[in-house]
Amino acid sequence: MQTHDGDRCPDESLDPQNWEAFRQLAHGALDEAISYVQQVRETPVWQPVPENVKHRLKEPLPLTPQGIENTYCDFRELILPYPTGNIHPRFWGWVHGTGLATGILSEMLSAAMNSNCGGRDHGALYVERTVIDWCRHIIGYPSEASGVLVSGTSMGSVIGLAVARNARAGCDVRAEGIRCAPKALVTYASKEAHSSVGKALELLGLGHASLRKIAVDEKRAIRPEALLEAIKEDRQAGREPFCVVGCAGTVNTGAIDDLAALAKICRDERLWFHVDGAFGALCALSDSLRPLIRGIELSDSIAFDFHKWLYVQYDAGCVLVRDRQLHSNAFATRPDYLRHLDRGLAGGGEWFTDFGPELSRSFRALKVWFALKEHGTRRFGEMIEKNCRQARYLARLIEADPRLELLAEPTLNIVCFRYRPPGANGEDVDQLNRDIVADLQERGMAAPSTTRLNGKVAIRVAIVNHRSRREDFDLLARSVVEVGNQRTSG
Amino acid sequence: MQTHDGDRCPDESLDPQNWEAFRQLAHGALDEAISYVQQVRETPVWQPVPENVKHRLKEPLPLTPQGIENTYCDFRELILPYPTGNIHPRFWGWVHGTGLATGILSEMLSAAMNSNCGGRDHGALYVERTVIDWCRHIIGYPSEASGVLVSGTSMGSVIGLAVARNARAGCDVRAEGIRCAPKALVTYASKEAHSSVGKALELLGLGHASLRKIAVDEKRAIRPEALLEAIKEDRQAGREPFCVVGCAGTVNTGAIDDLAALAKICRDERLWFHVDGAFGALCALSDSLRPLIRGIELSDSIAFDFHKWLYVQYDAGCVLVRDRQLHSNAFATRPDYLRHLDRGLAGGGEWFTDFGPELSRSFRALKVWFALKEHGTRRFGEMIEKNCRQARYLARLIEADPRLELLAEPTLNIVCFRYRPPGANGEDVDQLNRDIVADLQERGMAAPSTTRLNGKVAIRVAIVNHRSRREDFDLLARSVVEVGNQRTSG
Repeated sequence: MQTHDGDRCPDESLDPQNWEAFRQLAHGALDEAISYVQQVRETPVWQPVPENVKHRLKEPLPLTPQGIENTYCDFRELILPYPTGNIHPRFWGWVHGTGLATGILSEMLSAAMNSNCGGRDHGALYVERTVIDWCRHIIGYPSEASGVLVSGTSMGSVIGLAVARNARAGCDVRAEGIRCAPKALVTYASKEAHSSVGKALELLGLGHASLRKIAVDEKRAIRPEALLEAIKEDRQAGREPFCVVGCAGTVNTGAIDDLAALAKICRDERLWFHVDGAFGALCALSDSLRPLIRGIELSDSIAFDFHKWLYVQYDAGCVLVRDRQLHSNAFATRPDYLRHLDRGLAGGGEWFTDFGPELSRSFRALKVWFALKEHGTRRFGEMIEKNCRQARYLARLIEADPRLELLAEPTLNIVCFRYRPPGANGEDVDQLNRDIVADLQERGMAAPSTTRLNGKVAIRVAIVNHRSRREDFDLLARSVVEVGNQRTSG
Repeated sequence: MQTHDGDRCPDESLDPQNWEAFRQLAHGALDEAISYVQQVRETPVWQPVPENVKHRLKEPLPLTPQGIENTYCDFRELILPYPTGNIHPRFWGWVHGTGLATGILSEMLSAAMNSNCGGRDHGALYVERTVIDWCRHIIGYPSEASGVLVSGTSMGSVIGLAVARNARAGCDVRAEGIRCAPKALVTYASKEAHSSVGKALELLGLGHASLRKIAVDEKRAIRPEALLEAIKEDRQAGREPFCVVGCAGTVNTGAIDDLAALAKICRDERLWFHVDGAFGALCALSDSLRPLIRGIELSDSIAFDFHKWLYVQYDAGCVLVRDRQLHSNAFATRPDYLRHLDRGLAGGGEWFTDFGPELSRSFRALKVWFALKEHGTRRFGEMIEKNCRQARYLARLIEADPRLELLAEPTLNIVCFRYRPPGANGEDVDQLNRDIVADLQERGMAAPSTTRLNGKVAIRVAIVNHRSRREDFDLLARSVVEVGNQRTSG
């Protein structure tokens, strides 16, 4: 037996050659990581990446080792100072969650284990099953419902709608594709529904034109009678209504559809009821907010995020499906090399790869498990309530200032308003408000984002931030007025 | 202005109440995480989760805080001892990468920043762009090609095939769905192609029956003449051939299609050429292995993983698309609230959400950036070569023992063999080899997996492990014979 076969260092690995030096470096980095979060209030919310840093980040492919010390040095200089900003108490852009300090811990432990959660039989899967069980409990789903953790609601809705499509197309879609469906499938959601619903339908081969965008009421919730009318029209035209997507918290204003009414319509009309609960679903954690999402527990599938209102690190979302068999029917495949065995590593219960399109899967469940155990659901409920109170507080500040205009009364945690100088016309006011937002961001003072409501550009404040305090909103309202005044006084 | 509105603790956050205590706990956990990896060779490869641990993990939803100390205690007792096992030097099941010790560092830093990489203008996006540029360079794609990091090759192939579908359907699939296509679209791949290709076609609404599984040669690579024949037949039958998926490393044996030949066929026949390069694509990092994947640079799209042969932590993969415009055409959507602005946080270049189905995205690029800078591509190339040499070494060990039968000569890093006692029949031998694998796993000695080759159950060793040494394969071969002898001597 030849034992060397040209090997230079047959037993060399990519592990540190000096574990003690690595350990020391890692402890230094951990201190820095913790301080970074601890002191975030004292730093700018956001700062642009300087041109010379961008240039240095465009490094050619490293052929030779630079070592961990140099790599970490470059990280500290070129990357760490330029976060998205969502960990800061005055970040309220889009719907970005804050993250948890202890997420540093859970992510580092998850990295050490490096579990692959596609399937097989090991600890991480039992953790994910527990987290899903907790989610069923939170949402009010039956214990036999299935679920899987996903990168976020966008992927969760792809899965939920794929299950719906395959269950309702009237033919074997997995084998034959959607062309085998006798009629064109139609989905319904409010005009305020998130763009990910249309994107999911595109991916699934149904096309976004198959989504009927239904009119909303003054609270921006779907009008059930308009929905019924649309279903009737489509049936008369020979199309096949198959799914309604309810919104538990729209992205523009946090509006919530009457989910109980939608559940009833879906039952009567025999349609699949999917809920986009990206952030709003977790209102279930608050006794005072839970009535707003009444009926969510009657849906056939629901997608929501942990990285929004559970504040855990990116990425982490969940999809639940009431009918486990339909869920598995849509995704289970077992080639020979993934064969399930009675015992050993290839044993265990259900494999998560049979409930979604991913095969290799990271141990997302760990950070959610840590978060829920550390804080308990009641504290999360209190934080969610706090964010909603802060939205109302900000709305009152806006109403109290004649230069500010509230564009929508907050339902939950989203406030849309604008600075309105006397006598300016619409387009100027639009650009002015975009400029105010960019000014606040560039000064590192606060990070709201913008949207358009009733044709008007709005400053949009989405409070998904456990670090925000009242004083932060005082500062925001004051700063918007100051910057607006400065920009219009010239 | 009312300032209290019922708040009990208006300024309380979910941050540690005692940062110093948290810091101390985190340092202890870091030490444990590092030791866990450093000492992994001394631990069992895998052990089943005991029933009482499973029971304790089925904890009811935590309503009240358990605190970080208790949560960490539970983690240490209930989860940490039960990893998948892929960090161990004698884990060779499925195609699971080892992970890197320094991944503990990069994941902890990524958790501190908690960047959302869907878009906007911040440091993480420049890192992801750099990583994608490095990937273009590694694969040999033109500099204008686009790319996006994904959870793995399964999602990467969904994206690549979605771009292909939309580009080649002959109608506006995004709007109208696949029903608008004048003809049924047909995809081609070898019989040995991964199940994720069929699953991707199912998700995209094309159905797995639209996948033609083409015969392979004695090396289990696709037969180009059989492919041409199938294309011709489908055209004659009025179907629309639109895509060929080439395998750069099949999951059963590591077979590699003649990618240059497939590229030529796709050019001549005007088909989209997608490559599933899950692990094999990174042969590009080795001068001696690169010739095996010649032609990979001519593909229209390619999906591959970093969590396999770049050994980075789960999850991390990449999809590259030659035609940036077609890629963006398939996914770009910008509702008002995601409007791109000239400056501020909503500025910056392209947003990654316009290149895939995910909106919120984690900072996957950081661990890849750390890995490539720390070690450089040449060391990765050497590790990949080492794994392939180890496969040949194991094959020789098998051939040298009359009780072992080599079922396929390794092309790359995968060895399929079986224990064959004299005079046993086929079905008994199949079950015997499954038992041997489960025994080895349950004894914590080694973790190969099983598959079926030419109707025979095979012990399958996929070496994607930078920690494995020659002695580990000696031990494996010896143990298979020992366990086999024990099981057949009774």
